[in-house]
Amino acid sequence: MLVVMQAGATPQQVDAVCKRIEELGYVPHNMPGAQRTAIGITGNRGTIDPASIEELPGVGEVIRVSKPYKLVSREVKPDDTIIRFPGTDATIGGRELAVIAGPCSVESRDQALTTAERVHRAGARFFRGGAFKPRTSPYTFQGLAEDGLKILAEIRERFGLRIVTEAVDHESMDQVEQYADVIQIGARNMQNFSLLKRAGRSRKPVLLKRGIAATLEEFLMAAEYILSEGNYNVILCERGIRTFADHTRNTLDLSIVPAVQRLSHLPIIVDPSHGTGKRNKVTPLSRAAVAVGASGLIVEVHCNPEKALSDGMQSIFPDQFDTLMDHIRPIAAVLERSVAPRNQAAEPITVTSAASR
Amino acid sequence: MLVVMQAGATPQQVDAVCKRIEELGYVPHNMPGAQRTAIGITGNRGTIDPASIEELPGVGEVIRVSKPYKLVSREVKPDDTIIRFPGTDATIGGRELAVIAGPCSVESRDQALTTAERVHRAGARFFRGGAFKPRTSPYTFQGLAEDGLKILAEIRERFGLRIVTEAVDHESMDQVEQYADVIQIGARNMQNFSLLKRAGRSRKPVLLKRGIAATLEEFLMAAEYILSEGNYNVILCERGIRTFADHTRNTLDLSIVPAVQRLSHLPIIVDPSHGTGKRNKVTPLSRAAVAVGASGLIVEVHCNPEKALSDGMQSIFPDQFDTLMDHIRPIAAVLERSVAPRNQAAEPITVTSAASR
Amino acid sequence: MLVVMQAGATPQQVDAVCKRIEELGYVPHNMPGAQRTAIGITGNRGTIDPASIEELPGVGEVIRVSKPYKLVSREVKPDDTIIRFPGTDATIGGRELAVIAGPCSVESRDQALTTAERVHRAGARFFRGGAFKPRTSPYTFQGLAEDGLKILAEIRERFGLRIVTEAVDHESMDQVEQYADVIQIGARNMQNFSLLKRAGRSRKPVLLKRGIAATLEEFLMAAEYILSEGNYNVILCERGIRTFADHTRNTLDLSIVPAVQRLSHLPIIVDPSHGTGKRNKVTPLSRAAVAVGASGLIVEVHCNPEKALSDGMQSIFPDQFDTLMDHIRPIAAVLERSVAPRNQAAEPITVTSAASR
Amino acid sequence: MLVVMQAGATPQQVDAVCKRIEELGYVPHNMPGAQRTAIGITGNRGTIDPASIEELPGVGEVIRVSKPYKLVSREVKPDDTIIRFPGTDATIGGRELAVIAGPCSVESRDQALTTAERVHRAGARFFRGGAFKPRTSPYTFQGLAEDGLKILAEIRERFGLRIVTEAVDHESMDQVEQYADVIQIGARNMQNFSLLKRAGRSRKPVLLKRGIAATLEEFLMAAEYILSEGNYNVILCERGIRTFADHTRNTLDLSIVPAVQRLSHLPIIVDPSHGTGKRNKVTPLSRAAVAVGASGLIVEVHCNPEKALSDGMQSIFPDQFDTLMDHIRPIAAVLERSVAPRNQAAEPITVTSAASR
Repeated sequence: MLVVMQAGATPQQVDAVCKRIEELGYVPHNMPGAQRTAIGITGNRGTIDPASIEELPGVGEVIRVSKPYKLVSREVKPDDTIIRFPGTDATIGGRELAVIAGPCSVESRDQALTTAERVHRAGARFFRGGAFKPRTSPYTFQGLAEDGLKILAEIRERFGLRIVTEAVDHESMDQVEQYADVIQIGARNMQNFSLLKRAGRSRKPVLLKRGIAATLEEFLMAAEYILSEGNYNVILCERGIRTFADHTRNTLDLSIVPAVQRLSHLPIIVDPSHGTGKRNKVTPLSRAAVAVGASGLIVEVHCNPEKALSDGMQSIFPDQFDTLMDHIRPIAAVLERSVAPRNQAAEPITVTSAASR
Repeated sequence: MLVVMQAGATPQQVDAVCKRIEELGYVPHNMPGAQRTAIGITGNRGTIDPASIEELPGVGEVIRVSKPYKLVSREVKPDDTIIRFPGTDATIGGRELAVIAGPCSVESRDQALTTAERVHRAGARFFRGGAFKPRTSPYTFQGLAEDGLKILAEIRERFGLRIVTEAVDHESMDQVEQYADVIQIGARNMQNFSLLKRAGRSRKPVLLKRGIAATLEEFLMAAEYILSEGNYNVILCERGIRTFADHTRNTLDLSIVPAVQRLSHLPIIVDPSHGTGKRNKVTPLSRAAVAVGASGLIVEVHCNPEKALSDGMQSIFPDQFDTLMDHIRPIAAVLERSVAPRNQAAEPITVTSAASR
Repeated sequence: MLVVMQAGATPQQVDAVCKRIEELGYVPHNMPGAQRTAIGITGNRGTIDPASIEELPGVGEVIRVSKPYKLVSREVKPDDTIIRFPGTDATIGGRELAVIAGPCSVESRDQALTTAERVHRAGARFFRGGAFKPRTSPYTFQGLAEDGLKILAEIRERFGLRIVTEAVDHESMDQVEQYADVIQIGARNMQNFSLLKRAGRSRKPVLLKRGIAATLEEFLMAAEYILSEGNYNVILCERGIRTFADHTRNTLDLSIVPAVQRLSHLPIIVDPSHGTGKRNKVTPLSRAAVAVGASGLIVEVHCNPEKALSDGMQSIFPDQFDTLMDHIRPIAAVLERSVAPRNQAAEPITVTSAASR
Repeated sequence: MLVVMQAGATPQQVDAVCKRIEELGYVPHNMPGAQRTAIGITGNRGTIDPASIEELPGVGEVIRVSKPYKLVSREVKPDDTIIRFPGTDATIGGRELAVIAGPCSVESRDQALTTAERVHRAGARFFRGGAFKPRTSPYTFQGLAEDGLKILAEIRERFGLRIVTEAVDHESMDQVEQYADVIQIGARNMQNFSLLKRAGRSRKPVLLKRGIAATLEEFLMAAEYILSEGNYNVILCERGIRTFADHTRNTLDLSIVPAVQRLSHLPIIVDPSHGTGKRNKVTPLSRAAVAVGASGLIVEVHCNPEKALSDGMQSIFPDQFDTLMDHIRPIAAVLERSVAPRNQAAEPITVTSAASR
């Protein structure tokens, strides 16, 4: 159910509607738009009687939402969601492509800073790197935890890069929330509803990866869990699905990008690294992702991929990342999007051996 | 790495080996077998030097394990794991088929007890019913939580049925652990490694469902997470995988039953209800699951499936469950397995309306 | 569209209805049933006006068929189709399970006769063996062609086994038709509509294998192609679908057996050999196939699988086939089906070296 | 096995090597390259002794091919295959993108010519349109057969467009061969080996579509069947695979484009129409296909898609095709490819009603 306010409705009128919704035992979701404000109504108590709301001052109409997802739907909010990072030029979902780059895992201060310097120079505005790694085996490297988060914070200080890093449970979310600019929820946790609700109570934007066997509807419903708790800053991410095809680790499903864009106002980006699992496929599929209309890319770049502790085979070299950025600029222009310019080389990074691990 | 003790090794010798492993910075897993004791060695610090252990008294041999999974492997423990429930005849993994039956969700005391009475009478020794439900939509019934657990405890008291119910996060696990006999981890959480580790620190057996897109290796590695924390009582459960086929909700992959049995000592059971999503397929696929050699079944039975709050379309009627039990008896015999006998009808259940919801 | 004749309709009345249908530019399909005769109407010219037929003498009712498949549907023919082989006890779709066994390919007279002797002794009534092999590579063994068919004919003579063998194109169909009792159409040709129509004009029963990515509807529509040309003796065969799962070569989808049986009157059997691709899975999945309710099995048996020119890894030994037959007998009984008894050993086979290849 | 001739080897030396290969009972495949000539050796008789060839004059080296596919492999022919159409500027596999456009089926002279005029004007050099349609149901429109081919021939005459149309069996191939410039083999026939061999004996280039569940290796092996019969002009086409995802009819697997390009010298194009099954996805995925590096596109365009007899939902309007062509030009430039320019509008098409159907 959705209340669409009249174009000239006052904030007081909006508040009054929200209050009435609460009195009726439901949860109001105030979603201001460019033209007029919509108020989503959610709750677990059956349907509401429209008559109890539509006579309030300032209410334009009360409409039923026909999809199982509500708050993520364009029916509720026709305008694209643009996520802004105050004090920076970085956005996700706006005209400029959001480029997120960095290693699979933060392995050491040296590795992270060296890589960060290169992706920053090439024009990325976001840095990725895992401090908590969900690994198939309990016996493999699981990340540096808070030590890794501190290195990421240093990278933000030094290069102005916004930090994207994964939380795998409530405990790590508490820490990630303090250090990161964007909280990533991985594909394996796409239907960890307890974690989604926790992310919905965070103030930080959430990057939600599609599960390897998730349908479009399940993907949007997972995002709905986050929005339903009050966090509307969700970025969706296609990262490949599991199929019979064996020439790539997963099958990157680029058609979900325009499919999401028809149904939802949320931005969707693409991960060509996990999406293919092979270094030589990352640049071609990055070009394709931009061409299909994605709002951004999240790419694994490693200063020394042969020695990476995880996912080295799919990480590209910094020089390859430079080429990738060159390739996507003219393609973005076809979609009336831009790519941030290269930055000058900063002073050389010298990591003292004492600090490195 | 695996230490196989000599046939006549003493408990003191076993202890000494475990102590040495700990001194070396690894974790020993003591696994007594019918013939002799094996000690699994796990840890995240690279390989260990066999020479540092094989000279200890009582040690037969130190062998490398060739698979990524260790503790779940038959290389480490050749004998089948049989899970016993002290004070009852119920087992999982033994000669008798483990039959777990009950509704998708505990919806009310009335619904749960009425169904429990019927499945108990038909010969089930385990009762299933969700108190915490992972649902695709945040706006649908999410279970009765602790109220549901209390109803389940009453069912155990009244009928002697062992209780199987799902935990979806650390918080619900704390509660489930107190009330349940077996903690279920659902398909969506199969790679929620944080939850798996928490289950590994529980004293209760864990029923681990295969993820809808999990390979055999990922499935065994998920179980390995639980064993690696010290809980060796894990039951695997095939519940259908996601494929292109649209005549059933999932495609039940019965071939994984003999595949698991070759590689692992853990019992594997089958869920024909989620595996097909259609009531009329449950009995045929239950027969097939027993015929392929599964150690048991977990079946959705509802006293009034048309009114079920979740998964009604795949729940069978109590009368159909009676037929199912009749069908599997002679099939179990082909595999030298038995099925528990029917019980006499207990006194009629009269649920006072005050207590029912 | 379907004309259901009255219970006492005379053959002359049936003929008159068929004639009228032809006059209207459609094709009548006369399908006598246990109770009364139905006449299917097919054609490519839009819908027919029921009034033009329902007033004819003997017509009970004219009903629209709601599915895209018509002639294969239970709406058109409620009774199970039973395929009989005059002069023998062999049937497919009747009370006795149809067991078809033999090597993937006919490799030599020696290999074929030795294997035939064993499967005949164990109770199989049908012998399989490819003379024309569709192979992924153009450089591998493609079958003995007509020489292979002659060996198969000799096996029928000698052991009374009915012969099932594959045709891969019109040319091989012309030959197979002369030698075989059942013409097999392989999974790769399930939507080779030209070949299906050719099979529809044959007088021999057709065994149609499900394509590795075929939905239930596509499978039934492929059979419909055969029936629409006038050949109503079609046997469906589940042989595994392609999924992400890698512990078997294909994923055997046993749930399609009851799904087909609800929608269609055609018999459906199961191929556990291609369905799993692994010898050690053949017997467990054969048991499961019988338990789920299949009308029969088609199993690869080879007298010397290690030396097979194709698919040796999935062929079972003759001794394993004996065990398989022992296992399925009591399971078939649960479904009120029988399995043909063992035969006495015939005189020893001595293949003269001159004749062998 | 592959014979690589010395750089300065004479035609006579090449002939002599081919002759020797034939004497040994194998088939030589002469593949001249930019630098030097390679001679593939195929045959079904086990391995050949390299010594029997490497001493012949002009032979550089004899090497074993490590993949199951030989003639399609870059090991055998490192240079890209470029297919030329004498007397025209059209190529497939060269610097200019090959754009093939037109309706799913030729439905009438009017429909086909009207559509052809528009795609020609937009810059397409190839026209597609089915005269023989493989349809899931025997009761739906199966194409105009030779009447359709004649319309296609008229389109070639009138607009200079090269004709791409499908053959579904030997009989239709005989006709298609006479009228078409490129013979299409559809996804359902990708492993119809009899048809592939027949195509291999044709003089016309063959467009081979990937089967909906074909692996990369199976796809290349299917092409190998065509090359092994002597026709080296094969174009591969990705057209979507079958997965669980339900937001598009198939899942377009763009990663196979760079995967094929690493392994094979054959050109690969993309079909975004069948690949998505939805009109609104065709342009985005066309952009992505060009961006990933495909050698061309095959797109369904219909002058009146709402009335199309087949696949109307996925056919784009001529105006949308104009936009598509505008979008791909700058993307092609990133890959150093070009797109043919627009053509002036020809005289208006006036189809006399007598001739139209």
